[in-house]
Amino acid sequence: MLESLKEEVLQANLELPKKGLVTYTWGNVSGIDRSKGLIVIKPSGVPYDEMTINDLVVIDLKGNIVEGHLNPSSDAPTHVVLYDKFPDICGVVHNHSSWATTWAQAGRRIPALGTTHADYFYGYIPVTREMNSDEIQGQYEEQTGKVIVETFKEYNPMDMPGVIVRNHGPFTWGKNASEAVHNAVVLEEIAKMAYHAYQLTPGLEPISDVLLDKHFFRKHGKDAYYGQK
Amino acid sequence: MLESLKEEVLQANLELPKKGLVTYTWGNVSGIDRSKGLIVIKPSGVPYDEMTINDLVVIDLKGNIVEGHLNPSSDAPTHVVLYDKFPDICGVVHNHSSWATTWAQAGRRIPALGTTHADYFYGYIPVTREMNSDEIQGQYEEQTGKVIVETFKEYNPMDMPGVIVRNHGPFTWGKNASEAVHNAVVLEEIAKMAYHAYQLTPGLEPISDVLLDKHFFRKHGKDAYYGQK
Amino acid sequence: MLESLKEEVLQANLELPKKGLVTYTWGNVSGIDRSKGLIVIKPSGVPYDEMTINDLVVIDLKGNIVEGHLNPSSDAPTHVVLYDKFPDICGVVHNHSSWATTWAQAGRRIPALGTTHADYFYGYIPVTREMNSDEIQGQYEEQTGKVIVETFKEYNPMDMPGVIVRNHGPFTWGKNASEAVHNAVVLEEIAKMAYHAYQLTPGLEPISDVLLDKHFFRKHGKDAYYGQK
Amino acid sequence: MLESLKEEVLQANLELPKKGLVTYTWGNVSGIDRSKGLIVIKPSGVPYDEMTINDLVVIDLKGNIVEGHLNPSSDAPTHVVLYDKFPDICGVVHNHSSWATTWAQAGRRIPALGTTHADYFYGYIPVTREMNSDEIQGQYEEQTGKVIVETFKEYNPMDMPGVIVRNHGPFTWGKNASEAVHNAVVLEEIAKMAYHAYQLTPGLEPISDVLLDKHFFRKHGKDAYYGQK
Repeated sequence: MLESLKEEVLQANLELPKKGLVTYTWGNVSGIDRSKGLIVIKPSGVPYDEMTINDLVVIDLKGNIVEGHLNPSSDAPTHVVLYDKFPDICGVVHNHSSWATTWAQAGRRIPALGTTHADYFYGYIPVTREMNSDEIQGQYEEQTGKVIVETFKEYNPMDMPGVIVRNHGPFTWGKNASEAVHNAVVLEEIAKMAYHAYQLTPGLEPISDVLLDKHFFRKHGKDAYYGQK
Repeated sequence: MLESLKEEVLQANLELPKKGLVTYTWGNVSGIDRSKGLIVIKPSGVPYDEMTINDLVVIDLKGNIVEGHLNPSSDAPTHVVLYDKFPDICGVVHNHSSWATTWAQAGRRIPALGTTHADYFYGYIPVTREMNSDEIQGQYEEQTGKVIVETFKEYNPMDMPGVIVRNHGPFTWGKNASEAVHNAVVLEEIAKMAYHAYQLTPGLEPISDVLLDKHFFRKHGKDAYYGQK
Repeated sequence: MLESLKEEVLQANLELPKKGLVTYTWGNVSGIDRSKGLIVIKPSGVPYDEMTINDLVVIDLKGNIVEGHLNPSSDAPTHVVLYDKFPDICGVVHNHSSWATTWAQAGRRIPALGTTHADYFYGYIPVTREMNSDEIQGQYEEQTGKVIVETFKEYNPMDMPGVIVRNHGPFTWGKNASEAVHNAVVLEEIAKMAYHAYQLTPGLEPISDVLLDKHFFRKHGKDAYYGQK
Repeated sequence: MLESLKEEVLQANLELPKKGLVTYTWGNVSGIDRSKGLIVIKPSGVPYDEMTINDLVVIDLKGNIVEGHLNPSSDAPTHVVLYDKFPDICGVVHNHSSWATTWAQAGRRIPALGTTHADYFYGYIPVTREMNSDEIQGQYEEQTGKVIVETFKEYNPMDMPGVIVRNHGPFTWGKNASEAVHNAVVLEEIAKMAYHAYQLTPGLEPISDVLLDKHFFRKHGKDAYYGQK
């Protein structure tokens, strides 16, 4: 079942080490078939270079395993919450990429300091609040998803396709697994450049709303004119 | 038409990912045939590893498409302004390379801190002023070109083959597309070393004019003695 | 003798340059057969790309050469002390990887700033005290081992599989040579991210004990649920 | 003539891009046959991937071309001075590697902050003084050599196989071209780690003389015990 989704999710997972975003097994990608309500996700702790399409796990929107001989990623409950609450997203990535995780460890949101950022993320890339003991000691991965959703009260997930989970690392998403990985790569590069711009000039202010709008809407929405039709 | 120029522009574009200057499609190279007044430029948003010579777009100095089945780079109007106002340049590169973009985001020009810089760029590599709302909301890419030209009132574009567009990223140029890419690679390396030298010793002064002259004119002008005849 | 251990130690040594942890011959891996009390270790100063299984050296727990035509790593006496005093470890790595060595040169322990750290190292990764003249001028490599052991009075080596030797570089270990290398790779990545997080926000505090416990015990001990059974 | 020296110098030159030390043609290696007083050196401005053994240039200790159809490296006069004044060295490298050049641009010597440094360089790696206008406008490359020699009044070139030329970049040397490249690689790595250690803890002091002696003499002199006999 879900063969083409599995193939896409496999390729999206393999893209993570190819782009230098993961050390060992520190990342996972999933995709969802919205019509069936089924998610395909990486198995937990399986090395990328040994993983085959048959190792992928199919779960439903309650997190139950529907198909597969391995445990799903331990982060699966976070993916489930995101799919449940963000109905437009159809792919999710979690990883511990160096620069995005640096911002997570510093507990800071990433301001839009340039057009590279504005092309993809419409404003500050938010950082989640600290989780409390009950959340951590309870259903931790599910709670992580809930804290992300809480952070997005003021954000449209399609205009802001990623988040920094405090003390942890980034989650990104998109209209499919491949776009979610694309956004993970972009977030890492943006995080790197924002870090260095801040070191060069501490206290930098974000770019103007006019420039932010210009670049975001060059690539998004009905008046987009970047790329081919 | 323009087959040899197209081949050169294709190779110059492919050099960008090979040298690590671009993430995804974040860059574009063009070249001009001055006798015909025609520019060959990368199509917009096409991945480098899928691009063939037939995907390149030919435009004239008003930005009109003369040949090609795809949209030209969304930055084409900037290239057009540069070719129009800098008559000696025959190749242009734009990208979002990490270190040069870091300086763009910090809104700072790059001082000549060493001979590596002086071998290629004759003094501070300038940063453009902030663009105003009218410029951004109007013909943005054309206005970007005009702001670069405004910045070069005091510069000879052949002595200073690049610029940092504030909050955006670098443009470089040269006597052909290949040299424009060469200068993009050099700018990135210079931006990296200047960043780190500043972190090591904040407030560093540029090298002396005597040393700047020595190195620049080792490689440029009638008394150059670097390389082979 | 010890053919399968030699094969494992050879592969573990070759993993060091593959993961970018060593320049030239700046690293060494060993493994021990606890039943025989024999250690297999890299020969001193032999380039990785020339090393074969026959170049490995077998030594006993007094550091005497039992088999081999080459000198063992000059750091062998440190490995011997660690195997002697930490009875649960069966693999040891020493290297001069860039980021971990940066912390060694700064003489600072690495705080747990995020879950990536907490997944592997249960708290601060300690730094050894400065060695005195007698220790340095005497049996230096053996004394290095003793200073590590002294540092671990308050640590369980299986909960803290690595240390920063002050002014020198990291040692890591594990239940076999392969896991020791795995921990060396993780330490390097953690050291890199902790460095950058500190630059972004000086004076950062470690994560809470609750979050540290959650992540460490997701991967360790009887209630671990990361990976496959 | 000098075929085996040419082969060694060719390989040593090709090692520079392989180790990531050069951008384009920003580096050169030479070797000397002391019995004949002849130097083999890279031609000026020739790309590494096009260079063949026949492109190498033979010069004498006055800098005159003895054999070769190309101009020697523009830095040849510096190499000549070093061979003339440092009689024990038989290989020289100049490059603009990122981290060593960062220190050159900051005009700072590199302190021995750890054992990695002490294994190769016996104390501070010196930085040359600023050159004056007469030196720069006169026989610049020869004067560069003389300023290096002046810097080495207090240093033994075999104990300190490299120098940072202020505002320029590193020179390294050794008992042959291959060792000179080895030292260039080590200098770059040391420069990188010292930079980061200083950022982590500004004002760090060098390691003790006892530790410096221990490590330097583990690898050098009659009591060396690192490596194989």
